[in-house]
Formats: sequence, structure tokens, C-alpha cells
Amino acid sequence: MDSRLVVALDLTDADKLMEIAGNIGGEVFAIKINWPSIMIQGTGIVGELSRFGKVICDLKIADIPNTNSMIVESVVKMGAWGVISHSFTGGDSLRAAVESARNAKVFSVVSMSHPGSSDFINRHTDELIEVSRNAGAYGLIGPGNNPKELARIRKLAGNMVIMTPGVGAQGGKASEAIRSGSDLVIVGRAVYNSHDPLEAVRALNLEILESVQR
Amino acid sequence: MDSRLVVALDLTDADKLMEIAGNIGGEVFAIKINWPSIMIQGTGIVGELSRFGKVICDLKIADIPNTNSMIVESVVKMGAWGVISHSFTGGDSLRAAVESARNAKVFSVVSMSHPGSSDFINRHTDELIEVSRNAGAYGLIGPGNNPKELARIRKLAGNMVIMTPGVGAQGGKASEAIRSGSDLVIVGRAVYNSHDPLEAVRALNLEILESVQR
Repeated sequence: MDSRLVVALDLTDADKLMEIAGNIGGEVFAIKINWPSIMIQGTGIVGELSRFGKVICDLKIADIPNTNSMIVESVVKMGAWGVISHSFTGGDSLRAAVESARNAKVFSVVSMSHPGSSDFINRHTDELIEVSRNAGAYGLIGPGNNPKELARIRKLAGNMVIMTPGVGAQGGKASEAIRSGSDLVIVGRAVYNSHDPLEAVRALNLEILESVQR
Repeated sequence: MDSRLVVALDLTDADKLMEIAGNIGGEVFAIKINWPSIMIQGTGIVGELSRFGKVICDLKIADIPNTNSMIVESVVKMGAWGVISHSFTGGDSLRAAVESARNAKVFSVVSMSHPGSSDFINRHTDELIEVSRNAGAYGLIGPGNNPKELARIRKLAGNMVIMTPGVGAQGGKASEAIRSGSDLVIVGRAVYNSHDPLEAVRALNLEILESVQR
């Protein structure tokens, strides 16, 4: 079975990032990077990483349609497999991201995992799922550390793929996120801070596989 | 009187961007750049631009507190005077941006100007102003092409500085935005697509000055 593990390499040490990516790239679903890594040297890092496997750019874009398009085109041209966009900026902004992505996949944020997400965004999850569906998003970002809410989102998501952060150092269990309806599980620190990232990846892949077969 | 004009140099041609910035830098309040410009070569571009005047990084950051902090620290270290952040991700995310900015200024988005902003974000402006105030934002981003809504935001904003896009190619008038309560007016295409950007800047500065004196 293919891996359902997405490893977030939230590192600003480009050498370490590349080393771990080369080490684990063949055994994960994808590598996810965020803005701080791209800020080091621009989008060139996306192209370099794409040699090791799928790259998901977690940019949480939240701008007007034209700017969203420019951002997405830039990383897709460098080889990104997927991009993470917000949906609360409205259907036209998200649709611009989806259209500019062409064959690349756009995941839309409908829930977040940090405490402040309850101030605002997580109170509008259902509307955001609707905006995401109408804009043609490939997938949703849901809460990996909130199984009950994740299961609820799963029911509303239809055939959209669900990817979940909040697993590992943030408290959630990969197996529980999968059982609650997640298709792809994001793990960061528990892999890149491990003394043996590849071993950590293999243990997570096994945990996920067992939870699927149960 | 000092300029109240912020020029958005939304260009991915770094040479042209630098040329216009050098040309107009001394006669504007600040230069604003966005992600597509930073994606060309990383944050180095912020440092180069800061030689010509204040630089505002319009990143519309919308991530968890730790990632927001890393993004803000990165551009402030390079000399950014200000950063634009979203507020809908909650008080802790915005506060992380404010604290990481140290002496640099954080502007919080509470309203947007594209059609899709009415789907969602513009229906929550009042709550977002409250989140922004509580998080210690220096300023707000309001709608330069909607004088009535801008005047309403002005009343709720207290002593927060209001900066407004939507002027020029997007339909709003700089003078009208100022009269409706804007402190700083953002103009992009009407300057960088002009055959003489410096002349365009001077005309806008004059228009704003006259509207303030009236």
C-alpha cells in the first residue's frame, strides 16, 4: 500500500532539509514545505525537492484572485504537486488558485488546529467546505487532533481528499486521524527532530497501515 | 507634508522593480511588495528595496502562530518597515506576528476589495477589527473603493492607522479614500504601468494633499 504520510519539513536550514528529503522521499506520500523555507532562496527550493518525490507547498494563500494565481503558477512551474490555500477569502480567490494549478492539486483550509482558530475560522467550517467544493478544490485541510470534528468534516467533504496536520508533536495520533476520516496525515517535528527520520517514517507508515486494515 | 502614498510594485521583473523603486522611493510613504516578488529570489529583495525607503511586505500571512512569527522575523531582519497579516486566523496568530515584528508595524486585514470578499471575510469586519485591536495591530487594511464602508471602519478603528488598496486601476479615488478616513493609500498599476512613474506619484501626492487641505 502506498504511504499516506505527508512529512512537513519546516526547516530553514536548506542543507538539512534536502538531506532529510533525500533520505525519506521514497517512502512518504509527499514532502510539505512552508513559506520560511521558500524565503531562504525563492522557489528554486521547490524544484530541488521535487527530485525526491511529490512536493506540497503549504502557502496558506489568502489574497485577491490575481495574486493567488501568480503565487500558484510560480510553485507549480517549479514542480509542486500540490498547494494549500485558504478559502475564507472567497470563491473567486480559491477558484483562481485551482485554475492556475492546472494538474496540480489545491487543498483548501476549512479548519485549523491552534488555539486561536476557535476565535473565528473554526466557527465557519461548514461555509468554508461549501466554498471549497464550489471552487473545485481537490482536498481539504482538517484538524488531525480533533477526531470528532474531523469525522463531521468527513461527512460534509464528499469526495474531496482530507489532509490533516496536528499529529505527533501537536497531540493527535496518525492512526486516530485516519480512522476519523483523514486520507493523508501530516507529521513534522516527530520526523525531522528524530535521530533517524527514515525509521520514524517507517513506524508512522506501519501505524497508519495497521489502522486502515483494522 | 509627508506623502501618504504607498506604491504597490507588484512586479516579477526584479530589474524593473528596482528601477522604479529607486526612481520614486524618495517621494512616497513606502513601497509595498507581495509574495510573487519575494518568490523570485527570496527575502534578499526586501533588503535591496529598503535602501530606497520604507518597505511594506504584503504577505497576508494566515498561518499558525509559530509560522507567522518565522515569516515576520525573516522580512523584518531584512529591513521591512511593515508587514500585512490576516486576522481571521485568530488573536494568537496575529499577536505572534505583532510580537515578532518588534519595532516594525503590522497591518491587519479586516476587509478586502475583490468580489469574492463579500462571500465571507467582509461579513465579519467588525469582529476582525476587535481581534486586530486586541492583538496590538498598528494598522488595518480597509476598502479604498468603498467609501461608506471605509468611513464605518474609521469609526471602529480608534487610533489604528488605516491603509487602503482598491485605488486607481481598481476604481477608487485616492482623494476620496483619504476623505473617508484612510491614512495611507495604496496605488499599484496606475504608477508602475505609467510611462513616467515619478510623475504619476507626484500627481497622486498632490491629489491627496489637496483632499486633506479641503
